[in-house]
Amino acid sequence: MKITPQFNYYETPEANWRKKIYTIIFEADTHKGRLFDIVLLCAIFVSVLVVVLETIPTLHREYFMAFYIVEWVFTILFSIEYILRLLSVKKPLLYATSFMGLVDLLAVLPTFLSLFIVGSQYLMVIRIIRLVRIFRIFKLVHFLNEAQMLGKALRDSVFKIIVFIGVVVIIVLIFATLIFIIEGPENGFTSIPMSMYWTIVTITTVGYGDIAPQTVLGRSLASIIMLMGYAIIAVPTGIVTAQFTRKHANKSSIKGTACPNCSKEGHDSNADFCKYCGFSLE
Amino acid sequence: MKITPQFNYYETPEANWRKKIYTIIFEADTHKGRLFDIVLLCAIFVSVLVVVLETIPTLHREYFMAFYIVEWVFTILFSIEYILRLLSVKKPLLYATSFMGLVDLLAVLPTFLSLFIVGSQYLMVIRIIRLVRIFRIFKLVHFLNEAQMLGKALRDSVFKIIVFIGVVVIIVLIFATLIFIIEGPENGFTSIPMSMYWTIVTITTVGYGDIAPQTVLGRSLASIIMLMGYAIIAVPTGIVTAQFTRKHANKSSIKGTACPNCSKEGHDSNADFCKYCGFSLE
Amino acid sequence: MKITPQFNYYETPEANWRKKIYTIIFEADTHKGRLFDIVLLCAIFVSVLVVVLETIPTLHREYFMAFYIVEWVFTILFSIEYILRLLSVKKPLLYATSFMGLVDLLAVLPTFLSLFIVGSQYLMVIRIIRLVRIFRIFKLVHFLNEAQMLGKALRDSVFKIIVFIGVVVIIVLIFATLIFIIEGPENGFTSIPMSMYWTIVTITTVGYGDIAPQTVLGRSLASIIMLMGYAIIAVPTGIVTAQFTRKHANKSSIKGTACPNCSKEGHDSNADFCKYCGFSLE
Amino acid sequence: MKITPQFNYYETPEANWRKKIYTIIFEADTHKGRLFDIVLLCAIFVSVLVVVLETIPTLHREYFMAFYIVEWVFTILFSIEYILRLLSVKKPLLYATSFMGLVDLLAVLPTFLSLFIVGSQYLMVIRIIRLVRIFRIFKLVHFLNEAQMLGKALRDSVFKIIVFIGVVVIIVLIFATLIFIIEGPENGFTSIPMSMYWTIVTITTVGYGDIAPQTVLGRSLASIIMLMGYAIIAVPTGIVTAQFTRKHANKSSIKGTACPNCSKEGHDSNADFCKYCGFSLE
Repeated sequence: MKITPQFNYYETPEANWRKKIYTIIFEADTHKGRLFDIVLLCAIFVSVLVVVLETIPTLHREYFMAFYIVEWVFTILFSIEYILRLLSVKKPLLYATSFMGLVDLLAVLPTFLSLFIVGSQYLMVIRIIRLVRIFRIFKLVHFLNEAQMLGKALRDSVFKIIVFIGVVVIIVLIFATLIFIIEGPENGFTSIPMSMYWTIVTITTVGYGDIAPQTVLGRSLASIIMLMGYAIIAVPTGIVTAQFTRKHANKSSIKGTACPNCSKEGHDSNADFCKYCGFSLE
Repeated sequence: MKITPQFNYYETPEANWRKKIYTIIFEADTHKGRLFDIVLLCAIFVSVLVVVLETIPTLHREYFMAFYIVEWVFTILFSIEYILRLLSVKKPLLYATSFMGLVDLLAVLPTFLSLFIVGSQYLMVIRIIRLVRIFRIFKLVHFLNEAQMLGKALRDSVFKIIVFIGVVVIIVLIFATLIFIIEGPENGFTSIPMSMYWTIVTITTVGYGDIAPQTVLGRSLASIIMLMGYAIIAVPTGIVTAQFTRKHANKSSIKGTACPNCSKEGHDSNADFCKYCGFSLE
Repeated sequence: MKITPQFNYYETPEANWRKKIYTIIFEADTHKGRLFDIVLLCAIFVSVLVVVLETIPTLHREYFMAFYIVEWVFTILFSIEYILRLLSVKKPLLYATSFMGLVDLLAVLPTFLSLFIVGSQYLMVIRIIRLVRIFRIFKLVHFLNEAQMLGKALRDSVFKIIVFIGVVVIIVLIFATLIFIIEGPENGFTSIPMSMYWTIVTITTVGYGDIAPQTVLGRSLASIIMLMGYAIIAVPTGIVTAQFTRKHANKSSIKGTACPNCSKEGHDSNADFCKYCGFSLE
Repeated sequence: MKITPQFNYYETPEANWRKKIYTIIFEADTHKGRLFDIVLLCAIFVSVLVVVLETIPTLHREYFMAFYIVEWVFTILFSIEYILRLLSVKKPLLYATSFMGLVDLLAVLPTFLSLFIVGSQYLMVIRIIRLVRIFRIFKLVHFLNEAQMLGKALRDSVFKIIVFIGVVVIIVLIFATLIFIIEGPENGFTSIPMSMYWTIVTITTVGYGDIAPQTVLGRSLASIIMLMGYAIIAVPTGIVTAQFTRKHANKSSIKGTACPNCSKEGHDSNADFCKYCGFSLE
């Protein structure tokens, strides 16, 4: 592919046409771009719904033909979209090998492959990956701000959460070994990995009940694990809450500038005058 | 109905009578209004209790007649109340088509309909909607203040909670597809909607155990989902707690006095000068 | 009982003897009083342990005689203690009819009654009420301070928690009615009270799995209830956390006095000099 | 062992050799020390994985020889490490009887004992204690800071959590007795300890469902326990969160500089004068 300098890339008539498509498909500022995003969002939702409903045996048998047609309509639409993306983007190879490019490809590939590979229901399920494409459209919606804040609070505390998960895993491994010794294979705790599964089910307070301790000692240990899980859950909550609270505190209190007269800081963001000496802050 | 100008609407003798009823039924400031609300609250509680108890087969068989009589007493009382509301309110049509008006109608309708439609137990259950009428009376009780604060904290964070629920649903859909591929219909995961049900049961740490993974890979994935659910629960808690804390913080940091110059409020407790106009606060 | 004026009540030799017992039994400041509390604490723990272990059929059969003897030893000890309390206290009737006095009586009564009423295992279980007596001794331990703080934070938010529980109960009633209509008696939801039990099991994320929805619609509703429960749990956590945070904030920041020079407030409790003007705060 | 004065202990050629080993094994500041820690971390992980996988019957049968060899390789490596630790440390007896010294010994002992005691699968499981050795290496990783903070927040609130667990245990005992009286042995509540197990399963919202109340009264009590558990979980969360929030608050309000006069730190960011000695901070 010939690399043209950026300033005249979009000035040939062909480039002009590309630029228009790029604006519609990749951006959301124009009216058409927003419309495209909304249509795409609906298409993704409907096509994912089709994938989900198709797995229900009774529906699959009865509406087989309808599912087949709807599926091909969406596949062709998404294929056209994929080709337009490839054409309009400046560096098609970079896009095609990017995460979102691969997702876009995987969203249509299984349907085409099903023509050659017979009876591949599990292959078809891969189309659920279309769901991931929703994240691209998130830039449109007003939820962005909230989502970003949630995301940032999580990212800031991701390190603490990893340490926490690590400690939980070590606790799980130790308790799983203990319950394995106490209960043994005859009560369903056939191996340490199995016991780990049970310990996680218990410490997270899920409690399926498919495996449950039968001996007095096993039940006592289970009680301790449950009470621990009850106390442990406070930790990630504490981490995230402190993050949220701090974020709010930061946002509400700080004005960047100091008072030009007494040079004191910490003014509210809506303050026009220094609260210490009354000097104008503007 | 003739619309009369507001200032003399309540000055004819008939209007005067209407006004009195209106004050008793719709307001809670007067002694009679409060008494009416308390009586109504008790009536709703008892009538809901009757609906609830009536569904127990043994009680239904034994005390059939008693339930029947009590039900008709309450239905007639509520019907009279509904008619009085219609009469006393200024715009009956607006009231009748409002949410609370419809609830008031639905509270009595099933009993009358049961005269014509035979054997309609499920229809009778609709009377449970009387419960909703309790919310109208909440204005009376002293709990109002607390309820309002709870409500406001929830409303302020409703947007964040929607984003959160949305993200949870996408996570659920992805994991449901994975577990459907791994476990398959032979282990109870008959379709993706069924797998979604299981994933929600697991990620919310409910854990019925009616469906549970059987394979090693399925159990590993289940463990990951549980630990995720354990970490994810921190997010709504963090949101609401930060909201509560901020509310408290706002209340405590406010200086009681307004600026004597511009009469704006909300100054920090350590402020010497108004942050809006620079006037001395002392 | 003759009421004597307080100042000479304890000055007769007999009163002096009473006073000593009172100090030992009811107070914890003296060496003997503390010793008495520790002995009583141990006695309560052991006697409660005996009640608990006695209910295990195998132990009950084997060590019947041992349990019988230990039980009578503790009953006689507690009876002596009860009589001493009655004798040493100024107003025996007031004590005997107080909550703690009744608990003290109920702690020994079942054993004596078992002499007359044959085969009353359930009656014996009432002795577990001895556990409540532990709370009396709490005044001794150093945990008091922490317990008080926990208690206060809970008491301050008890009003909010009542409103919260009330709203949860209304939500439970509405969802229980819906699931009763959807699933019906044939899937285990035999009545609305039964459905309420299931809804509470689900919304609190306990999830026994003894009753579980079988229909698609029922499972969808169950999913909604679970996600709601997941979001709702944030509310009490938020309430209590805000309470704790506020308590800490109050305690850590405020020094009661203002600066005598510049009369500014808000000094740390460990501050010796005004942080605004440097004047001594002592 | 002869105790030599500390200053010349490491100056003989032999001591010099010891010192080098000590630096590599016990410290993590040098390049070699860090390398040693990483190798040890991997060895622990792999050897624990072997212990875990060995308990799976199918794997145990098939790869018996491979597990046997890998196990002996790690045992010999850990034994050499243990001997080197004993040799390089100044006071070998103190190390050998310390907690970490015992863990190091227990990590290799079971394998050697398995030579003499035949068929001791449960003995082999003790090797899982190697996992505890990971904590020694934590000093290396960058997670230290986060882990320390988490640890400190937990330690600061450990007292409150003990009080909380104590109150929960008393509540559990009281409700266990009630449910034992209500449901009785015929519904699976065979004894008070068994009922306590069920109450803990319920109040922590685990909910196995292996035992579940059958009577109406039992289910009502279970509902109350669940709602209580729902409210109670707020308490540890509140404690830990308040701890986290306070920690952050403390950190942010501290002024970077120390007092130039008394060199004490921890001044508020808005302080102009040292709060301990009144010296100007500017």
